[in-house]
Amino acid sequence: MNNKPIGLIDSGVGGLTVMKEAIRQLPNETFYYVGDTKRCPYGPRTEEEVLDFTWDMVQFLLKKDIKMLVIACNTATAVALSNIKDKLSIPVLGVIQPGSLAAIRMSKNRNIGVIATQGTVKSEVYPQTIQQKTTDANVVSLACPTFVDLVERDMYTSEEAWKEVRDTLQPFNQTDIDTLIMGCTHFPLLRPLIQEAVGKKVELIDSGAETVNLMSTILDYEELNASKNSQKSAHQFFTTGEVEPFQKIAEQWLKQSDLNVQHISL
Amino acid sequence: MNNKPIGLIDSGVGGLTVMKEAIRQLPNETFYYVGDTKRCPYGPRTEEEVLDFTWDMVQFLLKKDIKMLVIACNTATAVALSNIKDKLSIPVLGVIQPGSLAAIRMSKNRNIGVIATQGTVKSEVYPQTIQQKTTDANVVSLACPTFVDLVERDMYTSEEAWKEVRDTLQPFNQTDIDTLIMGCTHFPLLRPLIQEAVGKKVELIDSGAETVNLMSTILDYEELNASKNSQKSAHQFFTTGEVEPFQKIAEQWLKQSDLNVQHISL
Repeated sequence: MNNKPIGLIDSGVGGLTVMKEAIRQLPNETFYYVGDTKRCPYGPRTEEEVLDFTWDMVQFLLKKDIKMLVIACNTATAVALSNIKDKLSIPVLGVIQPGSLAAIRMSKNRNIGVIATQGTVKSEVYPQTIQQKTTDANVVSLACPTFVDLVERDMYTSEEAWKEVRDTLQPFNQTDIDTLIMGCTHFPLLRPLIQEAVGKKVELIDSGAETVNLMSTILDYEELNASKNSQKSAHQFFTTGEVEPFQKIAEQWLKQSDLNVQHISL
Repeated sequence: MNNKPIGLIDSGVGGLTVMKEAIRQLPNETFYYVGDTKRCPYGPRTEEEVLDFTWDMVQFLLKKDIKMLVIACNTATAVALSNIKDKLSIPVLGVIQPGSLAAIRMSKNRNIGVIATQGTVKSEVYPQTIQQKTTDANVVSLACPTFVDLVERDMYTSEEAWKEVRDTLQPFNQTDIDTLIMGCTHFPLLRPLIQEAVGKKVELIDSGAETVNLMSTILDYEELNASKNSQKSAHQFFTTGEVEPFQKIAEQWLKQSDLNVQHISL
């Protein structure tokens, strides 16, 4: 038993899709969330920048004595996971492996699509991870550079967003994919738009939700679960950007009010 | 990457149901299997005996330089997992946690049945594990003391077995379970008989198959996967009983011939 908090980090608000599922599946746990909203999006950044920014968030959370770190951002996972995992003694999880494994389990025709930021697509981490596990999969990747911004600007239900998503995902209409990995934690906020664009027959994989299954498994495996009847501390949120828009999206998405959101400088 | 073998241990042939799924899901891995057929069944043994016998198998495999240990036996997991896990530096997995979590995910009405040996039922490890994770589950346990013997004697497709399974599981007809955990790795060999006895509407959980999902996750997490293109060694089987009946069941169940089965004394 261990009642210390679990740390989640993301370039902005996207990781909140992971946090929502984590709160649902792991009701006894306390979460500390850091969103680097000021320097978001990470997609077009260089590897050095992403590695530096990710370490900034990690160091902030290590001082808060977290028991587990979840890199709830695909771009940061692609660039920084193995480096950070090597250096820390607490469990460090990323979002790419769980999403890849879920897609392999789900796909029947072995044609798997991936949508992600430019950085993640360029890293080829999804095709590599999938092809390491299976020999017969065909992976089609597509960068969706405008999607993160639509979410961060709280535009994810707008008319503009519907059109943008439909136009961007148009190339998949010429493919035979039966499974599509949403390889960016911002994208589940656009889920209805994405589902409409690719059609109902394509199974969407939420890499964040899959990551929470992994968190649950590793908490058991490492015997780090919080006790069931402990007096639980409140979740805490930290943003490098403005508190107000962050708080608005977080409360809307998590369906909670009076969230404890603080501004930090990294 | 790590090409050392993974060790599986069981009181007899039951753990072969785990091994079959492991070979399917983890084709690059090499498995060493120990079945303590001579001292099987473990169900009616004392805790001290089960702990001793389990350690005998573990010590044999540690000398073979395994990279991971899977206690592919519910009775041994209930009694010995935490003790062995505390002492070893390699990952040690049991079959109870994965089966319990799968049942929680699967059950809609939260009425979950468990069938197991007397030892496992008496330990109450399944109800405890399930109730630790969820507050609203109702767990009905039933000891099936004759099932292991039916399998070990290679009688698992006989007329006698059909009648025995039907009679033993009769109490479930008075319950409202929608999910039934086969809480003994021998029982999946009786799966068609069990399914017929409880009816098609009840979802059967194979705790062994669920354990293989966990093996896969922990191999990734601990970065212990075997390399894809390595020249793989053959799986090895060790039994404390007679080689011939063990080999017959193993080849039949795994649908392989010329398995490398050796007699050992522990």
